[in-house]
Amino acid sequence: MLKSPVWNPGGRMLGVLGGMGPLAGASFAYRLAQLTPARTDQEHIPVLLRNDPRIPDRSSSRLNGGTDPLPAMLEGMRFLERSGSDCIAIPCNTAHLWFDSLQSEVTVPVMHIVECVVEDLHRQGIRGGKIGIMGTPATLELGLYQQYLIQAGYDPVVPSQTEMQASCVPAISAVKANRVDAAFAPASHGIAALERRGAQAVVLGCTELPLAVPHHRRAEFGLVLTDSIDALALSVLERFYAPEAVVLAV
Amino acid sequence: MLKSPVWNPGGRMLGVLGGMGPLAGASFAYRLAQLTPARTDQEHIPVLLRNDPRIPDRSSSRLNGGTDPLPAMLEGMRFLERSGSDCIAIPCNTAHLWFDSLQSEVTVPVMHIVECVVEDLHRQGIRGGKIGIMGTPATLELGLYQQYLIQAGYDPVVPSQTEMQASCVPAISAVKANRVDAAFAPASHGIAALERRGAQAVVLGCTELPLAVPHHRRAEFGLVLTDSIDALALSVLERFYAPEAVVLAV
Repeated sequence: MLKSPVWNPGGRMLGVLGGMGPLAGASFAYRLAQLTPARTDQEHIPVLLRNDPRIPDRSSSRLNGGTDPLPAMLEGMRFLERSGSDCIAIPCNTAHLWFDSLQSEVTVPVMHIVECVVEDLHRQGIRGGKIGIMGTPATLELGLYQQYLIQAGYDPVVPSQTEMQASCVPAISAVKANRVDAAFAPASHGIAALERRGAQAVVLGCTELPLAVPHHRRAEFGLVLTDSIDALALSVLERFYAPEAVVLAV
Repeated sequence: MLKSPVWNPGGRMLGVLGGMGPLAGASFAYRLAQLTPARTDQEHIPVLLRNDPRIPDRSSSRLNGGTDPLPAMLEGMRFLERSGSDCIAIPCNTAHLWFDSLQSEVTVPVMHIVECVVEDLHRQGIRGGKIGIMGTPATLELGLYQQYLIQAGYDPVVPSQTEMQASCVPAISAVKANRVDAAFAPASHGIAALERRGAQAVVLGCTELPLAVPHHRRAEFGLVLTDSIDALALSVLERFYAPEAVVLAV
């Protein structure tokens, strides 16, 4: 398993392999700009976002033998490198099931979203204990987060099959269908179920989920939430700017 | 003055010359995805967003002899065309002061944001009368909106110099400095001043201004607001999908 290399702070442009989904890709670009300690346009990080939603569905491919998304993702990676990206971020958790192939396709460093979430848990003061994971069925069933969390000394807690069908699955589908408001109820149901099992923090481990649980409603939950979009953005910023300059997620 | 040509609906990808500012560029990509009548990722429009904030400031160049942003913008246009864009959108009103040069640089159609705002006024049922304009000093002083609105049969109303300094200028600067919450008060002051002069609708004619006046607070104003980010997104969608499928701005 490759580790995300450290980005050279002299780097010129961040490439973003988006479109998985398009709202998550755009939201990542938005949060990256919003979390940047900049006073003028010119102080922001140059970003090239390839928000191409034609990439076949990642979950269907892994779980139901659907069309393989890897060729389309590799084409995107090559395009971003060819266009001058010094580092690439992929705001889609499920896509990280193909991380090693994606990193091998390019010579520039690729950020790993799960490592960024672990960095965010540290940033929020959580260094051990039970961590709930929400994500797509493929992310959960193939253990993308579990292996990283165990390696980092955490105890991962996952939703049951029934909870998945009542929480993560409808919340993610609602965001993908542009019914963001309808996503809050199932997402909060999922968070509550993980809290009942002792989770002290819950990972919103699919880039649709942070859109389901808007920032202004996060204080309603009695536990720490780590948002994979913001975690990716903050880790990018820490590599580009001095870490002490980076503001915490609002 | 060139007119935006109609985009061939068979087009494959929308190029976006963003970064002016970066929050506005990302917000355009976000609103385009959010306003799209899609049920799955794959039904969205493929977008390539070049969110490069290194383009020199447009207002300073036009009003104070600052560095010319045109070479950087032309480089961006050529990049977007070379990368397969079938149509280009520029979510920055002030950049449209260079529209003819930008359109001449590429063979693909470029959407004109001011035409999109006029389309949005029609969409909202405003076909004549006094229209207030908010924007950067360069946009206002060089008459970007005024000429289009007069041509379309409207009576443009602009803020006084004092009102500009108390409303548009601080609201735009606050958004560019990532202090979005601090932008609401000056922006609403500007809207109220234009309403007092008889405007029945106000154009948020700088792509930072829609961020200053969030969607959930727009009902507080007793007049129609037209948002240049949403107007550009809706006009793109009308060219890509059948117009009747396009939802109105939420």
